[in-house]
Amino acid sequence: MFKINENYLKLRGSYLFSTIAKKVAAYQEAHPDKELIRLGIGDVTLPLAPAVIDSLHKAVDEMASAETFHGYAPDLGYEFLRKAIADNDYKARGVEIALDEIFVSDGAKSDSGNIGDIFSQDNKIAVCDPVYPVYVDTNVMAGRTGTFLEDEEKWSNVIYMPCTAENNFVPELPKETPDIIYLCYPNNPTGSTITKAQLQEWVDYANKVKAVIIYDAAYEAYISEEDVPHTIYECEGAKTCAIELRSFSKNAGFTGTRLGFTVIPKELKQGDVMLNSLWARRHGTKFNGAPYIIQRAGEAVYSEAGKKQTAEQVAYYMNNAKTIREGLSEAGYKVSGGVNAPYVWLQVPEGMTSWEFFDYLLENANVVGTPGSGFGPSGEGYFRLTGFGTYENTVKAIERIKALNK
Amino acid sequence: MFKINENYLKLRGSYLFSTIAKKVAAYQEAHPDKELIRLGIGDVTLPLAPAVIDSLHKAVDEMASAETFHGYAPDLGYEFLRKAIADNDYKARGVEIALDEIFVSDGAKSDSGNIGDIFSQDNKIAVCDPVYPVYVDTNVMAGRTGTFLEDEEKWSNVIYMPCTAENNFVPELPKETPDIIYLCYPNNPTGSTITKAQLQEWVDYANKVKAVIIYDAAYEAYISEEDVPHTIYECEGAKTCAIELRSFSKNAGFTGTRLGFTVIPKELKQGDVMLNSLWARRHGTKFNGAPYIIQRAGEAVYSEAGKKQTAEQVAYYMNNAKTIREGLSEAGYKVSGGVNAPYVWLQVPEGMTSWEFFDYLLENANVVGTPGSGFGPSGEGYFRLTGFGTYENTVKAIERIKALNK
Repeated sequence: MFKINENYLKLRGSYLFSTIAKKVAAYQEAHPDKELIRLGIGDVTLPLAPAVIDSLHKAVDEMASAETFHGYAPDLGYEFLRKAIADNDYKARGVEIALDEIFVSDGAKSDSGNIGDIFSQDNKIAVCDPVYPVYVDTNVMAGRTGTFLEDEEKWSNVIYMPCTAENNFVPELPKETPDIIYLCYPNNPTGSTITKAQLQEWVDYANKVKAVIIYDAAYEAYISEEDVPHTIYECEGAKTCAIELRSFSKNAGFTGTRLGFTVIPKELKQGDVMLNSLWARRHGTKFNGAPYIIQRAGEAVYSEAGKKQTAEQVAYYMNNAKTIREGLSEAGYKVSGGVNAPYVWLQVPEGMTSWEFFDYLLENANVVGTPGSGFGPSGEGYFRLTGFGTYENTVKAIERIKALNK
Repeated sequence: MFKINENYLKLRGSYLFSTIAKKVAAYQEAHPDKELIRLGIGDVTLPLAPAVIDSLHKAVDEMASAETFHGYAPDLGYEFLRKAIADNDYKARGVEIALDEIFVSDGAKSDSGNIGDIFSQDNKIAVCDPVYPVYVDTNVMAGRTGTFLEDEEKWSNVIYMPCTAENNFVPELPKETPDIIYLCYPNNPTGSTITKAQLQEWVDYANKVKAVIIYDAAYEAYISEEDVPHTIYECEGAKTCAIELRSFSKNAGFTGTRLGFTVIPKELKQGDVMLNSLWARRHGTKFNGAPYIIQRAGEAVYSEAGKKQTAEQVAYYMNNAKTIREGLSEAGYKVSGGVNAPYVWLQVPEGMTSWEFFDYLLENANVVGTPGSGFGPSGEGYFRLTGFGTYENTVKAIERIKALNK
C-alpha cells in the first residue's frame, strides 16, 4: 500500500497568497461594483521591455525553421545567458563566477523550494521572521521543521531570527547554531536591507560554524544606496558558505515569463563533495531547462537597450514605493522599506492584527495588501504594500488610505 | 554543520544522456571531419508548427502591452489550456477529467522527478526493466532504492519487471507487492506498447494491492494501432489508482519549449487525503507556472490547424521509425517497436554488449544511438534508435549501418 509524505499534512492552511486570492475573489464577487487596487502580491504590472520583446520574437522565428530550431537545452542553461550573467551580475562587481557555477532555472521560487533536495533531512534551518513562506513550507514538506506549536505560531525545530523595528529588520546571529541559514536581501517582506559589513558578519559566522547560507537576492536591482551588497560574493569567504538565488521576475518583469538562476561556487563543499556537483545532478535529472526563447529573453535583459529599459521599470516601481512610503508617513503610519526594495512595511494601527487590517483595508479602501503575520509571528502587527502597481493606482490607493483617517 | 543528502552519492555515474553527450563530443573533437548522425537522444528536429509559432508571436505581443500583459499564472495553469486538454485528450476519448485535476507544468521530466515528493520515503517502487532512467534516479535521490548491487546492476530495494523479447516487452505482474508502479506506454525505450486489456489488468492489480501507478503517456500521439489505450483513464477504476503524466515534447516538438501536465483524479486517495491536494500544494509552493506565452503555444497545439500540423510531424517521425525498422530488419537485425512509438529497439549482434555496440556504431558508421543497458540490466544486449532525426539523415544512417554488414 502506498504511503504519502505525511509532512504535507503538517502544513498550515494553504499558501499565503492563495488565501489572499480567495479572500479577494470572495469580496469582489459580493461587491462587483467595487474597484479593487491590488498592492498585495509582488507581481509586476509593466509590460516586458521592448528589447526583451524583440528578442522573444526573434527567438520564436528561430523555432520556426529547422536550421535554427532548438530542442533540449544544455543542462546548466545556454552559455550565451550564463556568460551574460557572469559578466554583468558578477564580473562587473569584481566577482569571478565560472560559467559552470551558474544554473539557469525557471525562477527563484522553484530553486528556493528545490534546493533543499541536496541536503539531508537532519539539518536545522534558521529563517528571518518574518520570511518568504516558501523557505519554511518547503522545509516542512522535507520534514525538517518538527511540529507546529500553536501557541507560539512557530515550528519546534526551526530557528527564528526576529526582524522588527527594534533591530532595524536585520537579525542578530542566532544563539542556537543552525545548519542552513536563509537570508533574503533586499528583504521580502520588510523591504529593508543589509550593509556589506553586516553581511560579512554572517559570512564569517557561517564559515565558522560550517553552515550554508541560502542567499536570495531576487531584489538586487532595487538597491539604491551605497554600501549595500548586490551579491553575497562581494563578501570575503562567501564562496565557501553561500548559495545565491537570483530571479528575472522583479528586475525585468518576468513573473509570467519565468527565468532565474542559482549560483553554487565549487569551493562550497562538505568534505570532498561539492554542492555544485549535487545540484548539477539534480538539475540534470529533475529539470529539462528553461525554454530557449525565454533564455534568449533573459539574454536581452543584459543588452545595452535592455539594461536601460529595465532600469526605467525599476525606477518606476521605486517611485511607487516612494509614493506609498511618503503617503503613509503623512497619514501617520510608521513605515520602513521602499528605499532599496519595492516593498513598504508598515505598522498596523494599535489594537488591530495584521489580518484585521487586511480586512479593514479591503473593505474600506478596497486596497489589497499582505498581512505581515502571513510571513511569520514577528510579522504580526505589520503589513506589506508593494510598489508593483501602476502609478495611477498607487496614488489612488494611498489617497483612499489617507481618507480613512480623516 | 550542514549535512548533504547522502543518497546523491549513491547515484551511478552521471545521467545516461550526459555520458553519451560526452562520449560523442570526445569522438567529434578527435575526428572533426566525420559527419555524425544522432539518433540517440529522443530530441525532435522539426521546427515548431506554424499554428504554434503564430500563437507564440501573438502571446509575445500581448506581453508588450500593459493592458494584455500577464504576470504570475494561476497555480494549476491557465484555464484556456486546461480546458483544451480536458476536451481533447480526455473528453474526446470518453474520459471525464475535471479542470482542477490537471496541473500544467514545464514538462514530464520535472513532473516524473518531482511526483515522488508527495510520497513518503518508505514506498517500494516497481519499474519496468529497461526503463527511463529518471524514474529510478529520482527515487535514489529520495532514498527509496536501497543499495546498488554491483553484480546484478540493480538496486536492492527496487522491484524490476523485465521487459524483453520473451514477454513481448510487457511486464508480468510482480511477485513482490510494490507501493508505486511506474509504467510508460507507448514505451521508452523499447518502443513497444500495451493493449487496453493488458493495462486493465494493471489497474485492477493496483487497486487490489492499493498501489499507485505513475503512468507516463508522453508518447501517446504515436499510437497507430487500435486497442491501445491513449490514456490510462480509459481503463475502469484507473481514477482510484493512477496518476498520468503527459508532455508536449514529442507530439508537438516542445523539447526546447517546455510544457507538460499531470493528471491526478480526486478519487485517488490515501484514507481521507487526496493526492490531488498534496500535489496542488507542492505545485503552488515549489513552482510558479509555465510561462504565459508557452501555455498559449500549448493551446495552439489543440487548434484545428495545430492538430493537423502536429499530426503531420508525428507522421514524419513515424515514417523515419519505419525506415529504421525495415532497414535494420533487412540488415539482419532483430527489431521491435517503431509502430506505436518513435523508438526502434534492436538486438545487438551476438558477443557484443550494448555499450560495445554504441562504440562500434559511433566509430564505424558515425551513428549515435543509445545503449539498452543504460536503461537497466534487462536492456543489456539491446540498442535504441529514434525516429526523431531528419528523413535524409535517417536514410543515410541506415545505409551506413547496412554497409557495415557487407
